[in-house]
Formats: sequence, structure tokens, C-alpha cells
Amino acid sequence: MNFTSGEDASQLLSLDRIRGQLIRLEDTIIFSLIERAQFGLNEKIYQAGAFKDELDSQGSWLEWFLYEIESFHAKARRYTSPDEHSFTPLEKLPKPVIGLQAYPTLLHDPAARHPSVNVNSKILDFYVKHIVPGITPPLDDGNYGSAATRDVEVLQALSRRIHFGMFVSESKFLSAPQDFIPHILSNPPNTEALAGLITKPEVEAKLLIRLRNKARVYGGEMNADGTVMELSDAELKARGKIDIEQVVGMYRDWVIPLTKDVEVDYLIHRLDGVPRSQIDAWLGQS
Amino acid sequence: MNFTSGEDASQLLSLDRIRGQLIRLEDTIIFSLIERAQFGLNEKIYQAGAFKDELDSQGSWLEWFLYEIESFHAKARRYTSPDEHSFTPLEKLPKPVIGLQAYPTLLHDPAARHPSVNVNSKILDFYVKHIVPGITPPLDDGNYGSAATRDVEVLQALSRRIHFGMFVSESKFLSAPQDFIPHILSNPPNTEALAGLITKPEVEAKLLIRLRNKARVYGGEMNADGTVMELSDAELKARGKIDIEQVVGMYRDWVIPLTKDVEVDYLIHRLDGVPRSQIDAWLGQS
Repeated sequence: MNFTSGEDASQLLSLDRIRGQLIRLEDTIIFSLIERAQFGLNEKIYQAGAFKDELDSQGSWLEWFLYEIESFHAKARRYTSPDEHSFTPLEKLPKPVIGLQAYPTLLHDPAARHPSVNVNSKILDFYVKHIVPGITPPLDDGNYGSAATRDVEVLQALSRRIHFGMFVSESKFLSAPQDFIPHILSNPPNTEALAGLITKPEVEAKLLIRLRNKARVYGGEMNADGTVMELSDAELKARGKIDIEQVVGMYRDWVIPLTKDVEVDYLIHRLDGVPRSQIDAWLGQS
Repeated sequence: MNFTSGEDASQLLSLDRIRGQLIRLEDTIIFSLIERAQFGLNEKIYQAGAFKDELDSQGSWLEWFLYEIESFHAKARRYTSPDEHSFTPLEKLPKPVIGLQAYPTLLHDPAARHPSVNVNSKILDFYVKHIVPGITPPLDDGNYGSAATRDVEVLQALSRRIHFGMFVSESKFLSAPQDFIPHILSNPPNTEALAGLITKPEVEAKLLIRLRNKARVYGGEMNADGTVMELSDAELKARGKIDIEQVVGMYRDWVIPLTKDVEVDYLIHRLDGVPRSQIDAWLGQS
């Protein structure tokens, strides 16, 4: 999200605006998956300690990439932006070398930027175990750097997409706080009811259709003149740049459910530290 | 190019294969330009010394990004690959931490990997002066890190694309050495004749048409279901994610001419150190 375009919080939190960002991020995610799919699986880069002599580390080659790239991005103040979350623990990363940007306060609790659900470790886990083997041939082609560079790009885009759930939750909460408050205050919080309030099955169904069509366009073949080639599903599977089912399955099985976890987790903590008078005022609105 | 897929040099140097790579790189370049176009111009990141206190350097913010990212990529052996060229001088970059890959020898002279024409500095120059101002709004939105990250991605892709000219030259030279040799050996070398031998105006015309169509697809708008929206040129200009004319103009005015410089420069040095007997044998083929 471009937080510094001079708009105020209510404009930035409009659901249309957030949806626009999420739809735009689909393009980034699909394209970075296509870039990754050019290289072999290179299983070795995901194995802890496989390069322990070279890297002087028990971690994996990919973890080394994440650490090095995130260390540099931290110096360039990436993780001071409310929609960015590092895979490496923040305390292990260097401080920004330039002053911070002034962001409007959009989320309730700054601490909520690091949800108690550690979503990035789950993202890394499903990506390495399920997505990479699904979109790459099972080869070691030696392109360890190229592959891990694309992995980092995919992971960063997925992390932004999934943590954007916090902005979705804040926007929906503010539009009808009275609907959420009883479920947040019940003990324990009624996570099922909260999930129900933010889930729109018809929106999710549309998302998956849109994603499939985008993956067909971006991952399909072009004619020699750059127009989109009309291919059957079987031809696309054989000739396309990426397996479309893998892209759709990733959203259906991982991205959407994890976003929901982030959304619910954010809502559970939405009233932490909020004065009773404010809660009563919200309830009085109903 | 995936140099390690077990194919031999003649397969890797087939013109069809090289063309396939160049066409694939168009997608990467267009998409990274679209990603950059999300952010403002942020002119400050291109000005030498604008962050001299923070970076302790007289260079620009972008040069700092190039240096830091290339330093890391050098450790991951990126610049040992015959199709990769760093913007930072190699002697300022760290050594690879892992052993080198075994690449088949595809180019004549390893020294030719660093052509006497310093093409990367020209790429950086046209990109900063002509491309970024053409695809971004003239704003400082403070997204210095996001903008420079995308700049590095565009620059790396452009550098690969343009230096690929060496493989094109080698492939064309080997297919008809007798046509090239007299122009290489004339004193001074006949660069115009060499350029004529590698230039196919009809291929270039097709490339620009293909590029325009790809930019329309990737940079255009999608319908809510992810199918490509049919828009007029004027609508695209107003609503699209990137100015298509800028993409086409970049290839026409910069990428194609600079690639030709690389190709001719490579050919001029193609016979350096080649024994007379080999040259005679090639000439005898005619």
C-alpha cells in the first residue's frame, strides 16, 4: 500500500482500496511464481545444513538468502512500513540507516503488526513443502542463486498479501463495530463467529476464478506477435510457463485460510487497551 | 540461460534457443517495469550524494542498492555465470562462497565477457534519465526502498537481455564464419558491414509489435474475473498499469541499439588469438 500519498486513514482503509491492492498483488505473486518455475526444484537449497561449510551456518541456503536480503532491506527501512513483515526475527536485523516515513495510524495496536500467530513461518513452510515442488521439475540444475532470489520475491509478496488481512479486518471492524464486539469480548473469543463475519464465500469463489484466468494469461503462451495463444487446458499444461492448478490450489489451500487466521487474530486483539467508554459508544451505534 | 541442463554447446547456441530466451526475457522486463511504475519517480534516489550523511557515500541511493544487492549475489556466485554482468566493478565485489558451476564454453574469449564498450553504465544512464521519468508520476512518495528494489530488478534483466547479444553473435558467426572474417580482419574492422550481417529489420519490426501486444496484456486492465479487458489505446493510457509507448520506445531507442553494440563489439574480437590455420579452414568452407 502506498501509505504516503496524502490520503487520510479512512480513504486508505476503504474496502475498495484494499481490494484493489489485493487484486494487484495477485499479479505480482503469479508473476514471481512463473519466474521461479524457470528453474529446477534444487531441493538442496531448502535443506538445513546442506551448505554448512560454505555458509558457516546450520540453516538452509534459502534462509541465508532471506537473512541477507532482509538485512539489507531493513537498512533501507522496509520493515518500518506497516504492511511489511520480515521472515528473519526483527531483533536480528540491522536498524534503518535513514529516518522513518510518517505513516498514518491505520491499525489499532502497533503491537498487532506482529500477530501472535507466526504467519511467516507458516508461509515459508507451505511454500517450500507444497508450492515449489508443484511448480518446478524435480531437478538439481545448480541455479541455486537464481532459484532462491525468486523464492525470496515470492515469499515477500505472499507475506504482504496474507498480512494485509489486518487492514481488511480493521476496515470491516470500523464499518460495524457492534457486530464484532460481543464475539471479541466473549470468553474465550468466538473465533468462529468472527471468521463468519469476515468471510464472503462468493468473493472467495470469484477470486479463484479470477486467479485461474490471470494465470492462464500470464503463464500461457503468446503467439509470435505477442497476442495470447488460445490453448486447451491440456495444451496449457504441456506448454505453459506454470501449472495453473498449483497457483489456484495455493490460494485455495494456503493463502485464503492463512489470511483468515491473520484477520481473526487481529480482531481478537482489536479491543486490547480500548477504553470502556469507546466500546459503549460503538455498541450504542447499533 | 540454463547452462547446466546437460545439453552441449551447439544446442545451447542454436538461434532458436537463444531467441526463446530473449522472448522470455521480454516478459520479465515488462513485468518488472510494471512493478516499478507503482511508485513515484522519487528523483532523490538517483541524485549523487542526496543521502551522503545516511549512507556515508557520495553515490546515489540506487547505486547503494546496486552495490549491496550485487555484493550479496556475488557471494552466491551470480557473476560467474557467462550471462551475468554486474553494475558494480567486479573487483569491488566479494568472492563466491560456494564452488563454481561447470559451464560449457560457449563464447570465444572469456575476456569478451567484459566487452570494451561498458554497456552497463549506458544501461544505467538511459534507464534513469529516460525510462523511469517516462513510466512514473513525478512524485516523491517516500517509497525509496520499494522503488530502488524494482530498479535493480529492471536493470539486471536489461543487462542480461543486452549482453545476450554475445551469444547471438557467436551463434551467427559459427553458422557462416566466412561471411564475417573479412570484415573482422579489415583494418579498422568494418563495423557497419558486421552490423549489417547481424541485423534483420523484419525481426526487429516483429519484436516491437510483439512487445506492444505483451505490454497491452500484462499492463492492461483485467475484468473482475481475470480475463483481459478490451480497451482502446486512449483508455489503456488512462487506466493501464504502464505507458505502453514507453516500453516500446525503450526497446526501439535503447535496448536494440545497445544490443547491436554488444554484438558488433563481440565480433570485432572474435578472432583475437585464433590461429591462422583455423581462420583459413573457416574461409575454405565458403
